[in-house]
Amino acid sequence: MFLGRVVGTLVASRKEGTLEGLKFLVLRQIDVDRAETGTYVVAADAVGAGVGEIVLYASGSSARQTLVTKDRPVDAVIMAIVDTWEVHGETRYHKYRE
Amino acid sequence: MFLGRVVGTLVASRKEGTLEGLKFLVLRQIDVDRAETGTYVVAADAVGAGVGEIVLYASGSSARQTLVTKDRPVDAVIMAIVDTWEVHGETRYHKYRE
Amino acid sequence: MFLGRVVGTLVASRKEGTLEGLKFLVLRQIDVDRAETGTYVVAADAVGAGVGEIVLYASGSSARQTLVTKDRPVDAVIMAIVDTWEVHGETRYHKYRE
Amino acid sequence: MFLGRVVGTLVASRKEGTLEGLKFLVLRQIDVDRAETGTYVVAADAVGAGVGEIVLYASGSSARQTLVTKDRPVDAVIMAIVDTWEVHGETRYHKYRE
Amino acid sequence: MFLGRVVGTLVASRKEGTLEGLKFLVLRQIDVDRAETGTYVVAADAVGAGVGEIVLYASGSSARQTLVTKDRPVDAVIMAIVDTWEVHGETRYHKYRE
Repeated sequence: MFLGRVVGTLVASRKEGTLEGLKFLVLRQIDVDRAETGTYVVAADAVGAGVGEIVLYASGSSARQTLVTKDRPVDAVIMAIVDTWEVHGETRYHKYRE
Repeated sequence: MFLGRVVGTLVASRKEGTLEGLKFLVLRQIDVDRAETGTYVVAADAVGAGVGEIVLYASGSSARQTLVTKDRPVDAVIMAIVDTWEVHGETRYHKYRE
Repeated sequence: MFLGRVVGTLVASRKEGTLEGLKFLVLRQIDVDRAETGTYVVAADAVGAGVGEIVLYASGSSARQTLVTKDRPVDAVIMAIVDTWEVHGETRYHKYRE
Repeated sequence: MFLGRVVGTLVASRKEGTLEGLKFLVLRQIDVDRAETGTYVVAADAVGAGVGEIVLYASGSSARQTLVTKDRPVDAVIMAIVDTWEVHGETRYHKYRE
Repeated sequence: MFLGRVVGTLVASRKEGTLEGLKFLVLRQIDVDRAETGTYVVAADAVGAGVGEIVLYASGSSARQTLVTKDRPVDAVIMAIVDTWEVHGETRYHKYRE
């Protein structure tokens, strides 16, 4: 999985029928220092994420292993909202101490 | 999923039998500012997209989760035509205001 | 899917049993202007392609959705021989007008 | 599979329900000389790996083929802790001789 | 599939249970001129390959379509040992004429 910052939303009214009701968010991939890597992805939201939040997203067939994405043509899903991570024993991000 | 602009069409008469009737479109991947990224992809069309439209496409096994691509050897599918997206609260694209 | 030019053939006599009878071709990936992109791939052939032909190939699990590749350990398959494509209304390739 | 060094941990309390109990680790991908390649990945842990250890991780649908990740939306899993590897007959890494 | 040269071996005693008995080899990806591309991969061995041999490997879910890798968390498998390939009618590699 990669880390991403939710930066926006996307609306598509004409789509494959099974996608009805799914929420699509625009993510910027970030590295462990929270710098943007230049990669964006449009992901389905399985956890109620909002713009500005830092999330974990899964790609490929694994993106279809959530309640809202099962059997649907989506290849990226936000499956967790990140609270905190640390690298080499040092906290690099903490959701409630920003 | 990634954003793409439909730039062309492709015809192949000699192909795996199950592909009969599928429509193949040529996409240029674009970023959230609608700049082309240099990547193209040939995708099956599941939503009736036309040249010039901005679409969302899914890759890998997820490309086989539409009515027209199920069990077929395709690894990219257009699963939505995009109406609008916004980034940092600002509309970056709106289909009907171009 | 990506476009490729068939540039060669590959023979392997010691291989996983289920691969018996499969034909392996060497492809150079090309872009929509038919320039080689530097990427090669060895693909199974599902359509009787020959050296010099321009083909469409699928990767990943989708490469196992043809009659000859089903349940076999192959991750790339030629699933169509391309007749023609056009970009921005202009024909960029036509098999029978070369 | 690729080699990675476990460099940190990640906590996410709001997540897809099936992820409850899974441990997420932050990896830096390394090459066969143990130099970091610049790529990081967040992986589920299937083997009880700890920070500092060198591990092997699998990506994509293969990441769901462990007891702890089955049917869950994860696309990377640590499936082995590496003891040693050698390249051209020379040991490049040995867990117990560092 | 891609071509690789087997350059080494890897041992991991602490691993997901289903991996018991699998042999892991270190590969350097090569191009059709046998130059190393800079990419390495650790692959399961399904054909009894040895260090020095040139092989074909499959990635992703296709890596689980061999007798030894079925349902196991591996994302790369050596599924053939290459005898020969030719490009533009010219033999670029022949196992028994080296």
